[in-house]
Amino acid sequence: MSKKLTKRTEDYSKWYNELVVKADLAENSAVRGCMVIKPYGYAIWENMQAELDKMFKETGHQNAYFPLFVPKSLFEAEEKNAEGFAKECAVVTHYRLQSDPDNPGKLRVDPEAKLEEELVVRPTSEAIIWSTYKGWIQSYRDLPLLINQWANVVRWEMRTRLFLRTAEFLWQEGHTAHATKNEAVIEAKQMQEVYAEFAENFMAMPVIKGFKSESERFAGAEETYTIEALMQDGKALQAGTSHFLGQNFAKAFDVKYTSKEGKQEYVWATSWGVSTRLIGGLIMTHSDDLGLVLPPKLAPIQVAIIPIYKNQEQLEAISEKVAEIVKELRKKGISVKYDDRDTYRPGAKFAEYELKGVPVRMAIGSRDLENNTVEVARRDTLEKQTVSQDDVVNFINNLLEEIQDNLFNKAIDFRKEHTTEVTTFDEFKKVIKNKGGFVSAHWDGTSETEERIKEYTKASIRCVPNDAKEEVGVCVFTGKPSLKRVLFAKAY
Amino acid sequence: MSKKLTKRTEDYSKWYNELVVKADLAENSAVRGCMVIKPYGYAIWENMQAELDKMFKETGHQNAYFPLFVPKSLFEAEEKNAEGFAKECAVVTHYRLQSDPDNPGKLRVDPEAKLEEELVVRPTSEAIIWSTYKGWIQSYRDLPLLINQWANVVRWEMRTRLFLRTAEFLWQEGHTAHATKNEAVIEAKQMQEVYAEFAENFMAMPVIKGFKSESERFAGAEETYTIEALMQDGKALQAGTSHFLGQNFAKAFDVKYTSKEGKQEYVWATSWGVSTRLIGGLIMTHSDDLGLVLPPKLAPIQVAIIPIYKNQEQLEAISEKVAEIVKELRKKGISVKYDDRDTYRPGAKFAEYELKGVPVRMAIGSRDLENNTVEVARRDTLEKQTVSQDDVVNFINNLLEEIQDNLFNKAIDFRKEHTTEVTTFDEFKKVIKNKGGFVSAHWDGTSETEERIKEYTKASIRCVPNDAKEEVGVCVFTGKPSLKRVLFAKAY
Repeated sequence: MSKKLTKRTEDYSKWYNELVVKADLAENSAVRGCMVIKPYGYAIWENMQAELDKMFKETGHQNAYFPLFVPKSLFEAEEKNAEGFAKECAVVTHYRLQSDPDNPGKLRVDPEAKLEEELVVRPTSEAIIWSTYKGWIQSYRDLPLLINQWANVVRWEMRTRLFLRTAEFLWQEGHTAHATKNEAVIEAKQMQEVYAEFAENFMAMPVIKGFKSESERFAGAEETYTIEALMQDGKALQAGTSHFLGQNFAKAFDVKYTSKEGKQEYVWATSWGVSTRLIGGLIMTHSDDLGLVLPPKLAPIQVAIIPIYKNQEQLEAISEKVAEIVKELRKKGISVKYDDRDTYRPGAKFAEYELKGVPVRMAIGSRDLENNTVEVARRDTLEKQTVSQDDVVNFINNLLEEIQDNLFNKAIDFRKEHTTEVTTFDEFKKVIKNKGGFVSAHWDGTSETEERIKEYTKASIRCVPNDAKEEVGVCVFTGKPSLKRVLFAKAY
Repeated sequence: MSKKLTKRTEDYSKWYNELVVKADLAENSAVRGCMVIKPYGYAIWENMQAELDKMFKETGHQNAYFPLFVPKSLFEAEEKNAEGFAKECAVVTHYRLQSDPDNPGKLRVDPEAKLEEELVVRPTSEAIIWSTYKGWIQSYRDLPLLINQWANVVRWEMRTRLFLRTAEFLWQEGHTAHATKNEAVIEAKQMQEVYAEFAENFMAMPVIKGFKSESERFAGAEETYTIEALMQDGKALQAGTSHFLGQNFAKAFDVKYTSKEGKQEYVWATSWGVSTRLIGGLIMTHSDDLGLVLPPKLAPIQVAIIPIYKNQEQLEAISEKVAEIVKELRKKGISVKYDDRDTYRPGAKFAEYELKGVPVRMAIGSRDLENNTVEVARRDTLEKQTVSQDDVVNFINNLLEEIQDNLFNKAIDFRKEHTTEVTTFDEFKKVIKNKGGFVSAHWDGTSETEERIKEYTKASIRCVPNDAKEEVGVCVFTGKPSLKRVLFAKAY
């Protein structure tokens, strides 16, 4: 397999698919639509999990685990949610295979081992969790209930793409119960903030915080708060959502509590989630034609060190020096890989770490030993610099911060350049067609108009930004009055 | 629900079931055989995961993620494994539900959405992983391949018990590939050591390291290394297994590598796993009639602090003092909960932390403030002591270590008392019937004898201990010659 990637300008989608496989992040499996997350890709997910989990716990949440299966009847309880999720799903109907009498060595479903009630592999866990919460919530003392689950879920998608849309994916789903509507809304908004902070501070991926139009809402939600990122091809990516569920699930599963005043009340609910899709967003925000570019805060390897040597003696002298530097870097919490494999040439190693997006590469040869120097290269700008061995640890420590900031700023600049205010539908179409990105436009607030605009342009309403200022205008499509601009974009 | 538990001597099994539910560890779900792991139980699992994951990484393993589903045909590739695992399993046959035309508001399986090939929800992942490894392994440079996965698995068990045997459970499964038989055997044994170290050092649960008899081996393994623990009711618990798989999976999935000499060779495999079953073992090793007893190294809360006060003023003075102590304890990495809830009385809080097995409880009242003291109680021995506030941080730090050691030593003593060497089958039966525990006996090495002994006594061969010394003897059942004692026990 050639290491050379298709260029982004040539075919962005092909570039993405090739990059995911060549950088050893993930691959398609023997199961339609399901991916294998390879160690390097999974290490990024582990870093994401660690940071998110810390943020969830700091905001008072605890982890728990609920069953993989949802009995069909539980889905029927909340009609809208069932409508949205129960349909395209994996359904378990039997609990046994047996040797096939007609085909020696083959297995078949045992027709006598049919389940009385079909089990759905969870596409999301509101139904099973709310049927459980009924037993956990009696009094106001039991509230708020703030729980998160790390899990796999399955949605039977017809068209799948590694990380972005797969039949099985990994995610976290928070499910909380509150005594009042106000508390639940505050929780849902808080988690939107947590997601935005994670996206911007760790992924270096700027996001717009907003809420969804009715037609883009989560099935069963009264309000869906979203963070929306912009990819390099001008398409938006919904990176995380947090839902205010009102009392829909409490009513569907009869979850009531006794208030301080002794009254029986239905509780108020939220749910919120991010998934391995974030890895897709990370890739498409920063990477280039040479391969992956990772923000230091999530990179499994932050610094790769490569010795340049002609013989064993040189290697040993270099390794001795490197050991000191590695020790100091690790003291600062920097993850380092010293690649002294003798089965690959330095050039091949350089190419590998470039492809894999390692933020900083350090090379050191015999000449460097004499001069007390090393060569430091940064992945984001590809700049190289000779640095004194005495300063290299601080230099790299600062450089990692600089790279993190630079990636974020580049992405912010890109988004600014690709956010266009329009007043006419002609402009709207032209921008979507030629430039892409976010289009900020007035909209009359109806699902009909939203649908028509999507038919014409393939652009959907990504969100009504939280910070949208009131502004008198007219709908770009119908000319009806509007008080706020909303953001449209084509989306993943 | 009464907080009082059934006594262990009365009904051990009932005591266990009640404890798991009352200590808020887990409960049965709406799905037959599947459990909900509640936050407190899941926090124990998270602590177990963190330590194990660190140990796996220190021994060179990386995490990855493979699909939840295994196409039926992949199972057919390795016959013994299929025989052992593919039979009692959850089978996905359809990918869509639809509104039931005969029952408004109900859903049914869409008969037109039948899968061409059934998918089995993984009961273990050898098949899907080895079909993937085929693409990853070409050359000796790709070996060893050292991968672990944290995942949920499903086995359609008929009789289930929380943590000990559930249809769905959480586990980790390591799957490694090696160039030589010797390397694979060393790996399998190394992971047995890792498990034993974890069980003894963190769970304070002594284990016997050994290997399984042929009939107790993992389906598809050439050797199964096990760690066996002894529960308080005299039954053994298989706590972790590590398998040397030979070339069975390499041959079934045609996984070959080119050696340094340019030859095509099949690779050698291992797999190894521990699961949420460990939590069941943890409970049954240490807990008592008052509730859970947790070893400090895995306790989600190591120290619970309870203020004893009559009015708000007293509470404030106490809280101020406690804040200082909490800060110092946390500096030492000790997890502390200060429980100043005003909705519960101190007595109720004492009972709660006792039931939940928090290793150390500290109480502090106004009198203590005057005297510069606190009261410290340890959960394992129930001893209380008055300690100076000046010493309390070091005192607790040492006490946690002492409790950890005490739990391990108590369990070691129990095992010694419950390990009996026998020479006749009458003795064997008597020990199993009256005392339980491990019975060390000579055995003629045949599966037939093993089976007969099990029929008579319900005791199975738990393992041939690694350190079993050569000793001339005769089989306890057939009188045939034997050179080693093996360990029998009734088992979970």
